[in-house]
Amino acid sequence: MNEQYPSILLERAVGEFAKLPGIGRKTAMRLVLYLLRQENVVVETFADALLTLKHEVKYCRICHNISDSEVCRICANPQRDASTVCVVETIRDVMAVEATQQFRGLYHVLGGVISPMDGIGPGDLQIESLIERVGAGGIREVIFALSTTMEGDTTGFYIYRKLEKTGVKLSTIARGIAVGDELEYADEVTLGRSIVNRMPFTGTN
Amino acid sequence: MNEQYPSILLERAVGEFAKLPGIGRKTAMRLVLYLLRQENVVVETFADALLTLKHEVKYCRICHNISDSEVCRICANPQRDASTVCVVETIRDVMAVEATQQFRGLYHVLGGVISPMDGIGPGDLQIESLIERVGAGGIREVIFALSTTMEGDTTGFYIYRKLEKTGVKLSTIARGIAVGDELEYADEVTLGRSIVNRMPFTGTN
Repeated sequence: MNEQYPSILLERAVGEFAKLPGIGRKTAMRLVLYLLRQENVVVETFADALLTLKHEVKYCRICHNISDSEVCRICANPQRDASTVCVVETIRDVMAVEATQQFRGLYHVLGGVISPMDGIGPGDLQIESLIERVGAGGIREVIFALSTTMEGDTTGFYIYRKLEKTGVKLSTIARGIAVGDELEYADEVTLGRSIVNRMPFTGTN
Repeated sequence: MNEQYPSILLERAVGEFAKLPGIGRKTAMRLVLYLLRQENVVVETFADALLTLKHEVKYCRICHNISDSEVCRICANPQRDASTVCVVETIRDVMAVEATQQFRGLYHVLGGVISPMDGIGPGDLQIESLIERVGAGGIREVIFALSTTMEGDTTGFYIYRKLEKTGVKLSTIARGIAVGDELEYADEVTLGRSIVNRMPFTGTN
C-alpha cells in the first residue's frame, strides 16, 4: 500500500479509475472523492449503469453496432436504404455519420482496423460477415468511411480486394480540404489529393 | 432517448460518466466504450471498488480523515507528534502534506471551507470538533494549512477567533514565492506578502 493513501479502499477505487484511458491518478482521486461526497444512491446508480450495460448489451447481428435488441434500430428501420452499406471502424463512427443526417443507408461496423503492430488481423474484425452480407445480395453500393491512416488504408484495400469482383459499386468518402480550412494551413498530402480528386464545380459546392 | 445513441443502456452509462466533474459526453463515451471492450470481470471489479469504498469507508473519529478503521493510521501512530495539529480542508491536502515528508504531527480535516455562496457555514465543517480537541488538552500548536483564497482566509480567521484565547500556539504555513519561481512572473500580492513576511536569511534557505 502506498504510504500516502489513508485508506486501502480509497486507493483501490482510485487505482481502478486510473486504469481508464486518459485518466491519471490525480484525476482519478478527484473523481473518487467526488463520488464519495454523493449520496449512496448516486454511486449505486453509476455502478449499476455500467454493470447493466456490460451484462446486457447486444450487438446487432446484421451490422454489429451496439444495440438493445437482436437487430439495431437502424437495420430494423424500413425507411432506411438497405441497398447502401457504409463500412466504419467503430460505433462512434456510426454516431458521427448519423449526426450529419446525410446518410440514409445501413452500416457495417468492423470493430477496428487491421493493425499488425497491435496484433489485429482481418480475422479479428467483422470482415468475413461483410463479405457474406454483400454475397447474400440486395446491396448495390458499399461506402468506405475509414480513417485516413495507414491502418485504415490497409483495411480498406484488403476489403476492396475481396469485393472488387462482386460487381457491387465501391466508393469512399471524399477526402480533401475541410470546410472552413484555409489552403495555406492544409497539409501537403491532403491538398495534393484534393487536387488529384477534384470535383465538378457547380458554383455552390 | 437521443436519436444518436444506438442503445439506451449505452446512453445511460455515458450519462452517468458525464455527471462526473470535468468529464464531458465525448470523454464519457470513450471511457464507456473502453470498459465495454474489457472482460466482464474488469467492469465488475471497477464497480465493486466504488461500491465497497462508498459502503465501507470510515472517517477517523479524531482527525476526520478517510480511514479503514475507527482511528486512522496517522492518529494511531505513536511515532507522530500528537502535540502538533495541522488544520487542512480536505483529504487531498493531508496527502499533499504527507508527500512532503516534512510534517510529523497529526491532522484535522475540516471537510471544506466556509463559503456562504455555496451555503457552507461553520456548522457544516469539523470546526466544533477541532475546538473540543484543542480544549481537551495535549495540543501545543495548531498549524493552519488552508487555501490562500477568500474562503480559506475567512475560515482561518473564524477558527483563529475561537482558539486565540486558549494559549495554544497558532501558526500558518509560509506564503511566498514558490521554489523555482522567478520574481518577474510572481503576482503582486504574493510578492508583497513575501516581503512583509520576510524571514531571517541563513545563506541556504
